Amino acid sequence: MSRSGPPAGGSKSTNVTWQLGLVSRDERWHLLGRNGATVWLTGLSGAGKSTLAAALERALVSRRLPAYRLDGDNIRHGLNANLGFSAEDRHENIRRIGEVARLFADSGAVALTAFISPYRVDRDVVRATHVEAELSFIEVFVDAPLEVCEQRDPKGLYKKARAGVIKGFTGVDDPYEPPEAPELVVHTDRDSVEACVEQVLDLLGQRGVLGNGN
Amino acid sequence: MSRSGPPAGGSKSTNVTWQLGLVSRDERWHLLGRNGATVWLTGLSGAGKSTLAAALERALVSRRLPAYRLDGDNIRHGLNANLGFSAEDRHENIRRIGEVARLFADSGAVALTAFISPYRVDRDVVRATHVEAELSFIEVFVDAPLEVCEQRDPKGLYKKARAGVIKGFTGVDDPYEPPEAPELVVHTDRDSVEACVEQVLDLLGQRGVLGNGN
Repeated sequence: MSRSGPPAGGSKSTNVTWQLGLVSRDERWHLLGRNGATVWLTGLSGAGKSTLAAALERALVSRRLPAYRLDGDNIRHGLNANLGFSAEDRHENIRRIGEVARLFADSGAVALTAFISPYRVDRDVVRATHVEAELSFIEVFVDAPLEVCEQRDPKGLYKKARAGVIKGFTGVDDPYEPPEAPELVVHTDRDSVEACVEQVLDLLGQRGVLGNGN
Repeated sequence: MSRSGPPAGGSKSTNVTWQLGLVSRDERWHLLGRNGATVWLTGLSGAGKSTLAAALERALVSRRLPAYRLDGDNIRHGLNANLGFSAEDRHENIRRIGEVARLFADSGAVALTAFISPYRVDRDVVRATHVEAELSFIEVFVDAPLEVCEQRDPKGLYKKARAGVIKGFTGVDDPYEPPEAPELVVHTDRDSVEACVEQVLDLLGQRGVLGNGN
């Protein structure tokens, strides 16, 4: 392509900067007026991850801050539709989600992931890729006692697992490894959704994610 | 979680809407004030896809419109690091990129992809997933004659392909299948980068991607 400078008259977008070259992350974040981040919710089925992710998304986009939920609905039927439930595929499932979250965070958005992600090693891989890329990784342990989650059983999955219809279900016949040093623990059996959202937002504010006043 | 209504005094974010439930795409786009879309650049190596993608990203984020480039740098070393160059892996490469672009578009951002993506069938799969999700898929054929691309040869790849060092190189010993009905064709051998950017922005404006005035 030629480098002929700004177009002559007739352009509808005279305020466009015609500088060429790649946009760095710092530049993109500065121009957009905020920092990106990944908020990684982890916890048992029924602990409230999806509810919290949805409430966070709503709270953020209501402030016109791009946030996007990655969950079973938009991942398992799309990007990870070619993965099953073998041990290998479960690791790959979390790895890909982590990579997509990283791209969203790099773009300046808040990636909100809502997956049980029961294995510490998988979450640590995702954390490491964020640290390597100098991106905020906010691991939130969405905590509620197993008894409470099982009583809620919003999808009837615990019942099926106890009946042996589902095998390898986290908390029943597969382990959940709680985070050892999460950025935040929210207790959904004691606190309201709203209170949990506030706790996450406070943390995001400290990281410049709620706008840098630009 | 309990549904106890807004938190009591002390909240730093009194303007947050405490409505619960999932945020629909329409609602998200309305709150953010714009529509998402995927701009899929396709063309020979050296045709100018990366240059155009970078210029588009700059033009969009300068208007504070979230745009994000997906290219070899951030995909091949991350999400698709476990893919090689077999026929199967090449299809999977494009499929995953298409799925990530779809997530970005759904989030309200403009996904800008810059891959040769030589096979019509792969691009058509990506188009179909966008159409199915009722998302704008803007296929842009970044067109320049092979001779021009080969003369530019910014990465020295044509030279290596002609010498037989690289096998299966698009345009040399592997076919490039031009789009039959792209949304736009830009001619990088005749028009400046800026003129090409304008053509894409015009199209995005018609699709409500440059802000809906909300």
